[in-house]
Amino acid sequence: VNTYAWIHNFIATHSAAPTSGERFHALYRISGDEKTAYEKAKDICIEQTIEYPEDLVPDGVIRNEIFGRIEHFEMRDTACWAHISFAAESTAGELTQLLNVLFGNISLKEGIQLVHFHLSPSLSQRFPGPQFGIPGLRKALNAASGPLLATAIKPMGLTATGLATLTYQFACGGIDIIKDDHGLTNQPFAPFRERVARCAEAVFEAQEKTGKRILYAPNITAPHDEILPRAHIAKERGAGALLVSPGICGFDTIRLLASDKSINLPIIAHPALLGSYVLAEHGISHGCLFGTIARIAGADATIYPNFGGRFSFSREECADIVRACIEPYECFAPIFPMPGGGMTMERIPDMASLYGNDVIYLIGGGLFRHSDDLAENCRHFRTLINSHNK
Amino acid sequence: VNTYAWIHNFIATHSAAPTSGERFHALYRISGDEKTAYEKAKDICIEQTIEYPEDLVPDGVIRNEIFGRIEHFEMRDTACWAHISFAAESTAGELTQLLNVLFGNISLKEGIQLVHFHLSPSLSQRFPGPQFGIPGLRKALNAASGPLLATAIKPMGLTATGLATLTYQFACGGIDIIKDDHGLTNQPFAPFRERVARCAEAVFEAQEKTGKRILYAPNITAPHDEILPRAHIAKERGAGALLVSPGICGFDTIRLLASDKSINLPIIAHPALLGSYVLAEHGISHGCLFGTIARIAGADATIYPNFGGRFSFSREECADIVRACIEPYECFAPIFPMPGGGMTMERIPDMASLYGNDVIYLIGGGLFRHSDDLAENCRHFRTLINSHNK
Repeated sequence: VNTYAWIHNFIATHSAAPTSGERFHALYRISGDEKTAYEKAKDICIEQTIEYPEDLVPDGVIRNEIFGRIEHFEMRDTACWAHISFAAESTAGELTQLLNVLFGNISLKEGIQLVHFHLSPSLSQRFPGPQFGIPGLRKALNAASGPLLATAIKPMGLTATGLATLTYQFACGGIDIIKDDHGLTNQPFAPFRERVARCAEAVFEAQEKTGKRILYAPNITAPHDEILPRAHIAKERGAGALLVSPGICGFDTIRLLASDKSINLPIIAHPALLGSYVLAEHGISHGCLFGTIARIAGADATIYPNFGGRFSFSREECADIVRACIEPYECFAPIFPMPGGGMTMERIPDMASLYGNDVIYLIGGGLFRHSDDLAENCRHFRTLINSHNK
Repeated sequence: VNTYAWIHNFIATHSAAPTSGERFHALYRISGDEKTAYEKAKDICIEQTIEYPEDLVPDGVIRNEIFGRIEHFEMRDTACWAHISFAAESTAGELTQLLNVLFGNISLKEGIQLVHFHLSPSLSQRFPGPQFGIPGLRKALNAASGPLLATAIKPMGLTATGLATLTYQFACGGIDIIKDDHGLTNQPFAPFRERVARCAEAVFEAQEKTGKRILYAPNITAPHDEILPRAHIAKERGAGALLVSPGICGFDTIRLLASDKSINLPIIAHPALLGSYVLAEHGISHGCLFGTIARIAGADATIYPNFGGRFSFSREECADIVRACIEPYECFAPIFPMPGGGMTMERIPDMASLYGNDVIYLIGGGLFRHSDDLAENCRHFRTLINSHNK
């Protein structure tokens, strides 16, 4: 006799209608021996969906469809790999809830890494994805091929006029994308409205002079109720792109910006506050976090710390991000990997061999060191990079 | 001769006026030997503020005030501890930018843990903080003392009617706070509007019958542009509190909800997607993340996995969260620690000794196992817990 017959009956009586049967698929890397890892895989199926004692659930829709389902499990390369599918309906078609099903509660458990996932057809339709991607950004910049160059205006503490002067010089030097440093928000040193107006104006003046298209990307990472207003101010003032840190504002901010036709600007994702997901064996893989998730949210370019720079990403981890940015993935356009830092002359050949054509090099302090002519330094970097890109 | 005289001159000429001098203070635990750790501490001062080559910055406002400043550094207990201060202005008075200064870019660097921080006076004023806290929640529940009990309605896949039936039984059994499972958003099984209407109604009916005050807390974790609308629907339907996952929506969502007088409901923070910050030596301490940050954002209760449950938090880590919830901290009201899981009869005495009076025990599957009378099971748990709380 099942002592939990009463709750089995209750659940059987109150279960919803069957789902569409459509499922999305996630791949987890699980540490531990095979038996422990398999238990963890079974646990993921429950923890990420019903979060309820499995033995209290009778046969029926919930057990058969809403539980996560282990589609494949194998030990390989000293770790276990579990391919688990979930009902599309469990996400409610929301990016926020998709992230919750993929890694919400298990972020609190040890030894689990979300390596990759694939959406189901109806879920792919739900998310706007990149509105520009590599082809759209190239078109906006009138740059059909070759690596693109980007830099950030800083340091914090300069006035808006000072930042606009730097912007003008970078633009005259032909830097394709000039973004706010991600730490510039609305400080009194260079308030958002004034900074955006002056820097956008500086780009217009330089374009007038050189004829080259340049995009200025203000940082709109802000309090919840300030994000859209700042995006609209940026648009009105003539910004050519937007910078946002999804680790601070949530990835759904990118989805919202990408789906707002009144904004319609390329979106650049910044990795601030996201590092903890990738710095342990537990967490989310580099490609999945900075590539796939940013891409389905709708980012057109994704910034991450380059290998060989002042951060700790390896060449292989950067390659994983590149793969996730450009590999065919549902209906989503490929997006630009945007490695930052680590850009020294000696390392350009190796970078060129990893990144090839479809990359935005984000160059920082290095631009200030070659000579005392900032625009000339920008051209110098362009020449160096082009010389290694065949 | 300084070869960078031109950029020194430029920065000196374009620096903003001096800051107020007000600074906020963060404590970092840094791994590595003393020399390496000190270099990392110096790096934090730069990376989290100007993110620009230190040698290119001349004497003046930026170097003297905007750079982070090592106030104290010592090796203790096999790690190095760096107390670093930052200019209040660097946050622009924004919770989002405060988090960015505290841990944005360094989340991407290894061996650094944000252990604790203190706001400056003007920053404390900027954030609404908990609008209810422990005293306000007790008042709303008419429960002057003693541990509170909470549970979640689930599993996903039940209809709104089924969830409302559970809600009614929990409410009749005297559970103080009945929350949506954090994975219930707007799935077709039990759409948000219908679920909230029915569950709020169930609580009213039970209150009518028993006279005991109960709070129903719908989950409003949602896409960016759905959060406020769902909060307002919840309010209109008579919800008594709100559940939100800041790891998914951003901590600023809590700040927004706490500062919206037209909502004015207690806020419960859920830890989904936040685990990666605490599961490595690198990251954010348990107390700082689930306690301090949730508290300054404006949460009135903070959920976290209890020790001894199906997650991996230790008793000490839970104690750290409790400390951060209730210790005097600026002008912010103390908030309820809300440990979830791990609640078995044998473990109640130890939990009572750690948590004492000011705790909300979040009980899950255990409520279903004692007998086939759910309301009776709730009363049974209350009796058990009260018997250990003197």
